[in-house]
This record gives sequence, structure tokens and C-alpha cells, in this order.
Amino acid sequence: MEHTGTALDTPIRFETHPSRYVHWRLAIEAPIARLVMDIQEDRPLRPGYPLKTNSYDLGVDIELADAVQRLRFTHPEVRALVITSGKDRIFCSGANIYMLGSSTHSFKVNFCKYTNETRLSIEDASAHSGLRSLAAVNGACAGGGYELALACDEILLVDDASSAVSLPEVSLLAVLPGTGGLTRVVDKRKVRRDLADVFCSLGEGVKGRRAVQWRLVDETVPLSRFAERVPEEAKTLAAQASERSGPGVELLPLAGRYSEEGIEHRYVSLSIDRAARTARLTLRGPEAGEPATAAAMRERGSELWALRAFRELDDVLLDLRFNRPEIGVIVIETRGDAARVLAADRALHDNCADWFTSEVLHHMKRVLKRLDLTARSFIAVIDRGSCFAGSLAELALAADRSYMLAADGGPTLAFSALNQGALPMSNGLSRLATRFLGEPARADVPLDRPFAAEGALEAGLVSFAPDEIDWEDEVRLAIEERASLSPDALTGMEASLRFAGPETLETKIFGRLSAWQNWIFQRPNAVGEKGALTLYGKPERPRFNWPRT
Amino acid sequence: MEHTGTALDTPIRFETHPSRYVHWRLAIEAPIARLVMDIQEDRPLRPGYPLKTNSYDLGVDIELADAVQRLRFTHPEVRALVITSGKDRIFCSGANIYMLGSSTHSFKVNFCKYTNETRLSIEDASAHSGLRSLAAVNGACAGGGYELALACDEILLVDDASSAVSLPEVSLLAVLPGTGGLTRVVDKRKVRRDLADVFCSLGEGVKGRRAVQWRLVDETVPLSRFAERVPEEAKTLAAQASERSGPGVELLPLAGRYSEEGIEHRYVSLSIDRAARTARLTLRGPEAGEPATAAAMRERGSELWALRAFRELDDVLLDLRFNRPEIGVIVIETRGDAARVLAADRALHDNCADWFTSEVLHHMKRVLKRLDLTARSFIAVIDRGSCFAGSLAELALAADRSYMLAADGGPTLAFSALNQGALPMSNGLSRLATRFLGEPARADVPLDRPFAAEGALEAGLVSFAPDEIDWEDEVRLAIEERASLSPDALTGMEASLRFAGPETLETKIFGRLSAWQNWIFQRPNAVGEKGALTLYGKPERPRFNWPRT
Repeated sequence: MEHTGTALDTPIRFETHPSRYVHWRLAIEAPIARLVMDIQEDRPLRPGYPLKTNSYDLGVDIELADAVQRLRFTHPEVRALVITSGKDRIFCSGANIYMLGSSTHSFKVNFCKYTNETRLSIEDASAHSGLRSLAAVNGACAGGGYELALACDEILLVDDASSAVSLPEVSLLAVLPGTGGLTRVVDKRKVRRDLADVFCSLGEGVKGRRAVQWRLVDETVPLSRFAERVPEEAKTLAAQASERSGPGVELLPLAGRYSEEGIEHRYVSLSIDRAARTARLTLRGPEAGEPATAAAMRERGSELWALRAFRELDDVLLDLRFNRPEIGVIVIETRGDAARVLAADRALHDNCADWFTSEVLHHMKRVLKRLDLTARSFIAVIDRGSCFAGSLAELALAADRSYMLAADGGPTLAFSALNQGALPMSNGLSRLATRFLGEPARADVPLDRPFAAEGALEAGLVSFAPDEIDWEDEVRLAIEERASLSPDALTGMEASLRFAGPETLETKIFGRLSAWQNWIFQRPNAVGEKGALTLYGKPERPRFNWPRT
Repeated sequence: MEHTGTALDTPIRFETHPSRYVHWRLAIEAPIARLVMDIQEDRPLRPGYPLKTNSYDLGVDIELADAVQRLRFTHPEVRALVITSGKDRIFCSGANIYMLGSSTHSFKVNFCKYTNETRLSIEDASAHSGLRSLAAVNGACAGGGYELALACDEILLVDDASSAVSLPEVSLLAVLPGTGGLTRVVDKRKVRRDLADVFCSLGEGVKGRRAVQWRLVDETVPLSRFAERVPEEAKTLAAQASERSGPGVELLPLAGRYSEEGIEHRYVSLSIDRAARTARLTLRGPEAGEPATAAAMRERGSELWALRAFRELDDVLLDLRFNRPEIGVIVIETRGDAARVLAADRALHDNCADWFTSEVLHHMKRVLKRLDLTARSFIAVIDRGSCFAGSLAELALAADRSYMLAADGGPTLAFSALNQGALPMSNGLSRLATRFLGEPARADVPLDRPFAAEGALEAGLVSFAPDEIDWEDEVRLAIEERASLSPDALTGMEASLRFAGPETLETKIFGRLSAWQNWIFQRPNAVGEKGALTLYGKPERPRFNWPRT
């Protein structure tokens, strides 16, 4: 039976904590952390599919994402992460097929997007937190299991005459290795395309010497030496990263209040209009002055406005994606004191050499990327009382369009150094640079003066600046019109218009690879009655329609 | 009724000639050519949809592609191309919706791919043949009509208080402007993403001064001055390009023989095994020595081996795409004398400053790109008697994988200067550079000696080199296995693995944009019973499923 995916009986929550992990064990022995995947097959996120052979579902990935995040904030002393399995002879067999087969299209797509973001967060931690990662592949490593390994800096494969790495999606399931697999094989590990072609169409995978020769893994290690070689290599990786000084910062629970009507966090609210299929997303600036030194910011910890507000935003975005699929248009509002946001931004910018400050910035960056990748229409409404300044102004730039009230004493828009490259999009450019690809000089906005509506319009910083007479109607109409359009066409349109300019490994995964996977997730050859995904594990063989497309 | 798309009652042919154009008038007054779109609504490619309001189908695009190609070869004296319409108050209303609505998914996707290739050929002509293009938009310009204009170097829009440019696909049809529209708006014309968002979700489009301010067109011209301004601007464009000396080269008919069993051209054959769903594609090298000077090559004209053989290959690829959709695996073979191919390549390389030689090379490049973009599995079989040398060796590099017989006196593989950048892929790299992204030094293959199987395998130039004992079984099994896999999964896999490395406007169109469009072309919101594409032109309003994906 297909899960509806439109209104979950039990909404999915994205906060967790190592003390509550079901499927992972996190053990820290600085400078090395071991994250052991030991999936409890009787604890899937929803009933109906046992998580056999270390296969994962969204619940497993939520824990993984949490672990990587906490290592960065709470354990700065860790400089190498070993990802391995707690099962004998099996590393990970990938996403659970029965879970996929029984999920709605929308859930499948959002599941893959989330797991992709988690894999990218592992790479982001390596690039920016000096948290090098090592996949210690101690057994069979298939599909999403190998894609997890691909996200690590290095892959060690046990050489026990049977353990192989494989991407059997095409041959077994008639779908793609869509969690970055195809892209990372040729673009990250730079496996030759013809060998990649063989590898990706070969159910049984590749092991031993050939796996190294084909660049699929970095090293194979005899079973007898595996237990000793893994920590040795982890130490080597740890030595590459610069030391960071503790103590770490505990990420405290957000303790949001969730209901049918919306979400209430301290700095972020979501208010749903179910009939209109729209929501109002409100971000509030700091309530008082924020700390200005690195030490004071660490002291404030996860209660620091910039960290807490963006954690809350992240939570709301994920809730929207999974628990409220019918809400198509998100109106972004801000409230607060622009001077406080600009001061908070300045403190972050001036202290970015400090590891904690740097983590806060990279976290803001990742949350904003999550927004760019959220398949909903975002309209920024810059009205009286709004606070689109610095890092909050980034939300106006991330929106598909923006409306700013032109009135005497009306709202202003202000920028900080954070808008000029500290919070890049997946394409590697700042949102200002992406916006002004055609007029690059305009991306260099002045930081010393706020823009009123006319100036902002003139400078190309907002889409429209209606006066008080037109304001209400114009904004209302824009929202209503947007909400009336086909959700699918909007998803494709936004995925194209948001990512102008260069492509990166990251944008290739979400553009090229995911778009093809989404297509395939609709095709009868995969999900039809006789499709391979549908019939997986049953005695009946799939029946394909042969026309190539 | 849906057109089957699997076995056409009347196969589509891709050769035409200006004397037979139905929908376009080509008028040449050097250095300017005018291509006038005057679509005959009662002459669609297949019955069932009148081509009203200058809307197009594949038949219209085949003529356009032919015209651009012939201008390059036959009219070197032309340096500016004006594309305009022969209808009053309407430039072009895009692809015919009833044609799209009544086509199979596979046909839709291949139709868009072909029209995209044609648009890119207009840009290729501007970049490499000094054939600047000007869209003289003399009336309403919607959807594919505007996408055609976007492919031109400049767009002049008549300012008559009603003519607008528009991309109404999202709002009217619940699909994307998939012929490069979304990509070219933000990546070529660098329209600001928020303005692009408004433009692409606004059915009525943008006209007059705003169209210029938003960078959607280059200039608006009052109706009273339009007839005078267009040739004036065309002259300005023509003056930018360097002069090329005639006389031109007539492209003679290929006169292939087509049957259920395959195609016979002079240098290229296709032999179908319908039961196995495979085909053998054989390319033959020159039968005698080819001319070595620019003058002699022009003299030989379209009978020059390099031009004729690649025109034949192009024809076969298009025939496969449209007329033989069930043939999933294409085995590429070559026959002939390697020395003659290498000599022909050398002549092309040494004379590439000559306009005709340059056209031949760019044509070869475009055909090979067409192969890269053909959604079939290609397996190169390098057996005894084969002739994978230079430009023909490029076919082995373009294949998804290659098998080379290892035997005494067995086949060899040889390279020419043409393999080193003269025939780039859509990603801007040579196939050797793409192949060896991970080991760039290997891309610099020696040109002075042929590789036998072991050497080729060692150098990473072929995938496998079985000996005579294993040869037959290994090749047969590879073909059979490939043919047994899901055609959709293979399409997505190949689209990912073939395009490692950088992305360009071109790869973004075929990767990101087309992949999303293909997805949308499957969605009930577009093509379901109550979908917008299905209900277009009917009184009933579409009914959407609201979950965002």
C-alpha cells in the first residue's frame, strides 16, 4: 500500500540527540570519532518495512545528519570521522527498497534530497571544519551504502574475497543511484566513464584490486589487518587537519510547538493558511545585543541568535517539505531591529577565524542552501516593521521574488559583509553575484547605508516596490496567482531559474542527477505494476516497455 | 488519440532542401540572409493538428536545421541571418500544443531534444562561422517562438503596443519552456532571476521598454521604423564577422536506402536485429586517398569523405531516435584503411583556417555531440578489420564502453590531432580530456604510433581487451546484458556518466532543463486526464494535485 505523503498520521520530527540514536553508535576518542551504523531492523520510521541488512530509511539519516552536525559544534577536538558498520560482513545495503516502493513520489523525491544534503554535509565538514572522513567498509557495500562511502574523503575496503562495492540500482531496481552516486563516481572520484558504465550496470559490484584500479576505493585491506589499519589511516587523516581548541558547544533542543496551524519557535514562526495553500514564515532578529567576541559567542553557545534562528529555520523548512506538502507558497517576513542583526553579522564576520564562529557561518550557509533547494515558491515581503538586514536580507535574495513597500518612513533593506560571499549558494557564488550575473558591478552593494524602496528597486535588489495604494492588492495577487499554478511546473522552473551561473558537484547532484532520478521514479519500468522497484523481492520478473526516451 | 511513437506508419526523414521547404522562405542578399517563418497550417508532419498561428512541429524544425546548415556550407558570403515571420502581427507561437498533447512521451522528449540541437546550431554558426543572427520579432512571440529568438545573437521587438515576448508554458500548459528557454533567460541573457521568475510565470509576457530593461530583448522598434531598422542592424551584425570567400559547397542528397532491416548509406550502415533490440552501426573509412589541400577539399565538396560520412551518421542517429525507439543497444563498428582516415584528418587539421575545412570539422563535432546526446547504449567493438583511427577513433571514445580484440595481428587504435580538442563535447572538453579527468596526463595520447589491444588497455583507451578465446562470448554477453536493462534507468545513467566535468549552457539545457521537463512531461498535472496540456483549448479548466515535490 502506498503511503499518502500528503498528511502524515505522525509528523516527522528532525531533532534528535546521540542519547536517543536508535541506529548509530557514536564513540569519540579524540581526535577520532567512530560512527557505527547498526540498524535496528524492527525500528523503521513507519511500520511496514523491516530495515534488514543495514538498510536505511529517513529515520536513520536524520540521526546521521545530527551526528555530523554535533561533531562539528560539540566536538571540535575531533578531526577524523570513521564511518563503519556494526554488522558482520555487511557495511550497508543502501536505502530500504520496500520503504521506497511503498512511498509516494513526493516522499521519494524529498527523501533523496534530504539524504543528498546529509552526504554533502559530510563533505562540507571535511572542507570547512577539518573533519576528515573515512569509510571503513567492513563488508558488502551496495547502493546507498556505497554512496555514503563516496561522500567520505577516503574509502578502505576489506579484502575478504567477498566484500564488494556496488551500485546495483540500474540492474536490480531500474532506478538510479540518486544519492549522488553517479555524479560522485565520475566527478569526485573521477572514475573513467566507461569503467563507471560497467560498474553502474553490474549488479554484483567490484572488489579487491580492481576496485582500487578503477578508483572506486582508495585501498583494500586484508580482513586480518582491517581492525588495525582503519585507526592508523584515521590518524593520518586527522593529522592533516589543523587543531581546534575546545570546549565544544552543546546544541540544545529547540523545543518548538507544532500544530496543524503552524510552528512556533523562538525566532522563527510558520503560520499556515490551509485553504489558500500558503504559509507565512516569519524570522525575528535578536531581542537584545548579541555577543561581539569569539569567547562571548561560544559562551552563548546554541542560544546565539545566528545559530538558534537558523537551526529553527532549518527545522521549519524540513517540516514544510515532509509534513506539509500541499503548502505551495511561502511568504517570507522578518521582524526586529536591523542594527542588531548587522551588529551580530559583524561579530560573526570579524571573528570568523574562530572555529565556533566559523561553524555558525557554515551552518547558516547550509540552511540557506536548504532553502534554495526547497521546492516551494518563496516570496519575500518587505513591509513596515520588517528587518531584512544582513543575514536576514539573504532571505530576500534567496526568495523567487520580493515586494518592498514604497512609503515615507517605510521599510529599508540593508547589507552586511555576510552578503558578500560568506554564505555562498550551491553554485559557489553569493546570492548577490548570482542575481547580478549580467551586471557584476551591482553585486558590490554598499554596506554603509540602508536602501529605501525606490533605491532598492533602482539597484535591482527587489523585484517590485508598490506604494501604499497598490501594496496590499499587488502582494495578495502575486501570492494567489503563484498558488494557482501547477506545483510540478513550478518545481522545474524554480530549479532552473535559481541556479544560474556555474555548476558544481553539488548543483550537478540536485540538477542533473536528481532531475533524472525524479523522472525515473515516475516511469512504469520502475514503479508500474510490473516495474522493477515494485516487484523487488517478489518471484515475478519485471516487464519493461522497451522504447528508449 | 495518442500517437504510438514506437513504429511510425510513415518514417520521418531528415533530409530536405530549400526548394522543398514548406514552412520557411530563405532569401539571400549577401551578406544577409532572411529566413521567413510562414507556416502552412494544413501541412503538419502528421495529420491531426493544424499548425495555426505560426506554431511549429518537427517538420518545421527539420527545415530550419537544414537552412542553418546550408547557409554555412553553401553560402559562405552570408554573415548575418535575420529570422522573422511572414505572418501579420505574429512572430511565432511556439511548438504546436495539440501536436505535443497527442504525442507519446518518447516523441515529446525526442522532439524537444532535436529542437534544442537546432537552436544550438544557430549559436554554433554564430560562434564558429561568423553567421550572426538577428530575431526580427514582428509580432507576438510566445513560448518556443521566444526560445527561437533567444537562440539568436540579438532580438529586436516591434513596439506596436501589443506585441510581447512571453514564456506562457508554466501558466498555460503546466510544462516548462524546455527548448532552452529557462536556461537562456538566466544564463545567456542573464536576466535577473526574480524578473525571470515573474516573466516565466506570467502568461501575457512583457513588451516595450520593460522588455529591454529586463534584458529580454535588445531593442524595441516602432512599427513604422521596423522594416528599415532590421536590415540596418543586420548589416551592423554582418560587419562584425570576418569575410569568407566563396564559392559555397552544395550539400548533395545522401540517397540512403531505408528498410525495416536498417539503412544503407555509402559510408555508414545500420543493421537492425529487431528481436534482440540491437543494431550494428558500421562506419567505413575513405575508399581511396582524400584530397589534401583546401582547394581540393572544396572541389570534392559534399562528397568529401569526412563530410559525407558524418552527414550519413547524423541521418542514422536521427532515424534511430525517431523511427526505431525500441532498438536499445548500438554496436559501433568501423571498417577501412586507418592510414587514409589519418591522412584525411591531417588534411582537415592542417587546413582548418579555410572556411570550408572549418565547417567540415564543426559539422563532425555537432554530429558527435548528437551521438553523445542520443539516449541509446553505444558499445564500440574493435575487431579485426576495424578502422578506429583519428576521427573514427572518436566513436570509440564516445561509446559507453569499448571492447578490443587482443590477438597477434589484431586490430589497432590510432589517434590524430582531431582527437585533441577539435571535436569537443558539449561540456567543452575533448572526449579524451573528459575520459581522463582523473589522470589528465593520459589525455595526451601519442599520435605517432597505433595501439594494439594490450597497449590500449594499459593506456586506458579501451574498456576491455579479451583474447580470441573469450572475445565472442564476452562481447555477446555485454550486448545481451545491456539490452535487458530498463531503458529509462539507462537513459538517466548515461546522461550522468557521459557528461563528467564542467557544465556549459549546452549541458545545462540537456541535463538540468531537459531532465526536469521530461519529469514534468510525465506528471498528471500536465498530461493526465485533467492536466493542463491535455485540456489546452478545451473549455474545461485543469485540475491539479497540489503536493509539491
